[in-house]
Amino acid sequence: MGTREAAAATPPGRLGRMTEQQKTPYDLPDAGGLSIGILGGTGDQGKGLARRFALAGHRVTIGSRKAERAREAAEDLGADLSVSGAENAVAARESDVVIIAVPWEGHKATLESLRAELDGKIVVDCVNPLGFEKGKGAFALPVEEGSAAEQAAAVLTGSRVVAAFHHVSAKLLLDPEVGEMELDVLVLGNDREATDLVQALAGRIPGMRGVYGGRLHNARQIEAFTANLISMNRRYKAHAGLRITDV
Amino acid sequence: MGTREAAAATPPGRLGRMTEQQKTPYDLPDAGGLSIGILGGTGDQGKGLARRFALAGHRVTIGSRKAERAREAAEDLGADLSVSGAENAVAARESDVVIIAVPWEGHKATLESLRAELDGKIVVDCVNPLGFEKGKGAFALPVEEGSAAEQAAAVLTGSRVVAAFHHVSAKLLLDPEVGEMELDVLVLGNDREATDLVQALAGRIPGMRGVYGGRLHNARQIEAFTANLISMNRRYKAHAGLRITDV
Repeated sequence: MGTREAAAATPPGRLGRMTEQQKTPYDLPDAGGLSIGILGGTGDQGKGLARRFALAGHRVTIGSRKAERAREAAEDLGADLSVSGAENAVAARESDVVIIAVPWEGHKATLESLRAELDGKIVVDCVNPLGFEKGKGAFALPVEEGSAAEQAAAVLTGSRVVAAFHHVSAKLLLDPEVGEMELDVLVLGNDREATDLVQALAGRIPGMRGVYGGRLHNARQIEAFTANLISMNRRYKAHAGLRITDV
Repeated sequence: MGTREAAAATPPGRLGRMTEQQKTPYDLPDAGGLSIGILGGTGDQGKGLARRFALAGHRVTIGSRKAERAREAAEDLGADLSVSGAENAVAARESDVVIIAVPWEGHKATLESLRAELDGKIVVDCVNPLGFEKGKGAFALPVEEGSAAEQAAAVLTGSRVVAAFHHVSAKLLLDPEVGEMELDVLVLGNDREATDLVQALAGRIPGMRGVYGGRLHNARQIEAFTANLISMNRRYKAHAGLRITDV
């Protein structure tokens, strides 16, 4: 699906009717027809998201530095799902919405190399800059720009950068026994149309709900919170997720 | 209630039986008999916590720099609740567990002045170092020690510092129409007995559940997350809280 059809799936009039007074996270545009690219999609989180979005009826392209590895990851997910694999640049160019799921180490360089392909697109950053140390567990790494999402926004000045999907468990996404993902996806960004669309996209996965979580300058703690979820998982032998109450 | 009785309420044997393999946040010591001091308890959050803990049957002392202001705050909550007011030092000395609810600006100086009174006690820090700017909203302030909780731990080297109660809505705590607080309180700390006890304490308030949220080095993002909750409250006209799923 090209950008023209994506525009049709989310007509400007629909978005234009939404007001600053919106009081529920359910009055959102239709994200049903969007094609999705997942850069770094050969990792568990990227593959898991690819699987769930394909199950929800989206055309998904897994991107990787090597097309061959991306194709293998797509094949792993099964021939019955509309997931294909391609080089990152191709996956970016051919998708309406592009999710960044690369390892933090390669985050900045990957984005710098894809500025042209990502220009004008909604780019969803779900990268958590975390370190691990024995005895200390997971912890947030310092990021010069404040957060991975703000780094993406600094590099991709022509893109509409949104932060989301930080807390989804890759294991649950990939588990065929798990029909519903029981969590809210916090969606952060400075562009209301873009965050609305990504909230709607999160809502396409059964059990998930997209909830607006603030502007990009408050993304750091959302990324870092993943370290706390890892601590909870360890303590409770769980796959902890978040729900927001009273919303 | 003195520390000797507090020890009786949480017998060492009980704590000793808990293992590293604990898988639910419900197998916790009995916190029923603990007396609670709330420093900076004249603010809305402190007053709200005082009200809820008194309703749950705890003896609560609101602390303030001036005893007179603390007594006024206690009287505001109604004569039927076992809440009294005193100078911060007195409230600290006479309570089993001491909650720090002072404004961030006075955080370090207040704690430095109460080192002796807080020695050996469980100190629960719920302070959120936040700034506000027009057009930007709330955001996390940089803290030299990493977080308010780590600052408390650095100052109060003889205390057992726990971080908790960051995300509770003062408005809901004080609202007589609200019978249950629908949220999980994330409890962070490096001392297992202390975090268990504070989890149990959170569970004394109807609707609340105390969930272990990691060690103190991961407190910063929990404090900062309050800025995101403020964004959600604004967007959804809500009093947003957190629930942890799969735990």
